[in-house]
Amino acid sequence: MSETLVTVVGNVATRPEFRKTPTGVPVARFRLATTARRWDRERGGWSDGHTSFYTVWAWRSLGEHVVASVGVGEPLLVQGRLRVREEERDGQRWISADIDAVAAGHDLTRGTSAFRRVALPRPELTVPQPAPESRESVSADPAVALSG
Amino acid sequence: MSETLVTVVGNVATRPEFRKTPTGVPVARFRLATTARRWDRERGGWSDGHTSFYTVWAWRSLGEHVVASVGVGEPLLVQGRLRVREEERDGQRWISADIDAVAAGHDLTRGTSAFRRVALPRPELTVPQPAPESRESVSADPAVALSG
Amino acid sequence: MSETLVTVVGNVATRPEFRKTPTGVPVARFRLATTARRWDRERGGWSDGHTSFYTVWAWRSLGEHVVASVGVGEPLLVQGRLRVREEERDGQRWISADIDAVAAGHDLTRGTSAFRRVALPRPELTVPQPAPESRESVSADPAVALSG
Amino acid sequence: MSETLVTVVGNVATRPEFRKTPTGVPVARFRLATTARRWDRERGGWSDGHTSFYTVWAWRSLGEHVVASVGVGEPLLVQGRLRVREEERDGQRWISADIDAVAAGHDLTRGTSAFRRVALPRPELTVPQPAPESRESVSADPAVALSG
Repeated sequence: MSETLVTVVGNVATRPEFRKTPTGVPVARFRLATTARRWDRERGGWSDGHTSFYTVWAWRSLGEHVVASVGVGEPLLVQGRLRVREEERDGQRWISADIDAVAAGHDLTRGTSAFRRVALPRPELTVPQPAPESRESVSADPAVALSG
Repeated sequence: MSETLVTVVGNVATRPEFRKTPTGVPVARFRLATTARRWDRERGGWSDGHTSFYTVWAWRSLGEHVVASVGVGEPLLVQGRLRVREEERDGQRWISADIDAVAAGHDLTRGTSAFRRVALPRPELTVPQPAPESRESVSADPAVALSG
Repeated sequence: MSETLVTVVGNVATRPEFRKTPTGVPVARFRLATTARRWDRERGGWSDGHTSFYTVWAWRSLGEHVVASVGVGEPLLVQGRLRVREEERDGQRWISADIDAVAAGHDLTRGTSAFRRVALPRPELTVPQPAPESRESVSADPAVALSG
Repeated sequence: MSETLVTVVGNVATRPEFRKTPTGVPVARFRLATTARRWDRERGGWSDGHTSFYTVWAWRSLGEHVVASVGVGEPLLVQGRLRVREEERDGQRWISADIDAVAAGHDLTRGTSAFRRVALPRPELTVPQPAPESRESVSADPAVALSG
């Protein structure tokens, strides 16, 4: 049960890319930026702080709907499992903060949204988490994992 | 810093009601239902578990956009500060689990959404949390707090 | 996956009670109180806000260690699955905010702690979540669920 | 309010180092490792997944108590604000996942703990978050930020 669940409220920084894993599982991937805001006691106002970037993975129906709905610059709320991944590539060590999304939506703090429910066509699409093998087959491709 | 931040993924159970506090702060209120799903090892499938209900309060621009965007039965993702409130009314003790929303959006796991950004008309609307007095003036009204 | 995971930082309000379910699963139960603190812009200092109470359930080895370690008034950090339960008893409707703990520890913000690891004696103790039937058999007893 | 609050349950991977910022603010820093465990449907058992590492910063009294209480290999539960930091050093890009802790404690799932409350000697120690300048003065030192 040591999965780390996190909710990030931020802005979409790259256009969601859609693909299928070798075993046919749909997945969308994009970068999400979030800027901390803090109350400045001396000025008596809010000021922007550090900006963090995450790589978000949205699987199956969530991935399909993200690609159909979300554009760069839009405000988004993403809940998912957080992973910090390290890898060696071309002699450099890379670290990426990934979120395997379990839910996501446009943040209504910034605007309005019109929702349209999509019926699930096949029962197996209701399984909310990716099979381990499909996840690995994507993560193992550095170009997919780190180009964003 | 002992605020309890929670993210609830569920379905809207009552139509969002909009009002203004005596000091003029806009607020929307609705009930959100979430049903735990658990993996049944013996059956090898997911089954529904307990359903929890929350009373969600959305203030200022978030409240205005919720009322303009959200209908009963729609899937929603809400992040906010959790409070468990007790009160005595007509000789009975009542407890309510409230969420002061800081962000909310339609859950794209269930469908698509079209987002439209709304410009913030006045600087004071950017203040993300309600003044204590306005919050109390609403909470103190049992009909508001508990009829949903 | 619609489980609502929450982390509450608070103080232990009742002495943890230990029992076994009819099927022999150990469980500890106690009340946890948390008081929101907010920055008062006008005074330039922190002030106490609303206090929320939760009923925490700690199962198996976590329950045994809580009973052996935790006393009333001590500061605690609890992560777990949140459930809001309603029930009818003696003609009154009751609501309880429960947390099924998955991890818990003394909050080092307030003091120091000396930790002693306990080896898990039997493999089945490593299963981190209670079987549905054992949970129900406890929850169904109103005296257990609500006397705290 | 776009701070990303996260709770990580893991094991301490490096001995907490204690220092003071140039302005005299005490801070402890250590690495925390967490391994996801997932239910393997085919085997009918839990298996270990990916391990993520975080750099945890504990300020003021929390930092002092962490240094006095926590050793390598001990199980810990940390709640804090998550930041993903990038920097360029020696021609390489580095990313670090940092947690500014607001609460932390030994995880009682794994053992017992004896707690001893420490009185706060001075009122200013109760301020729960570091001043921006002190934080920067530490973060700006790459040797501090990245050697763990």
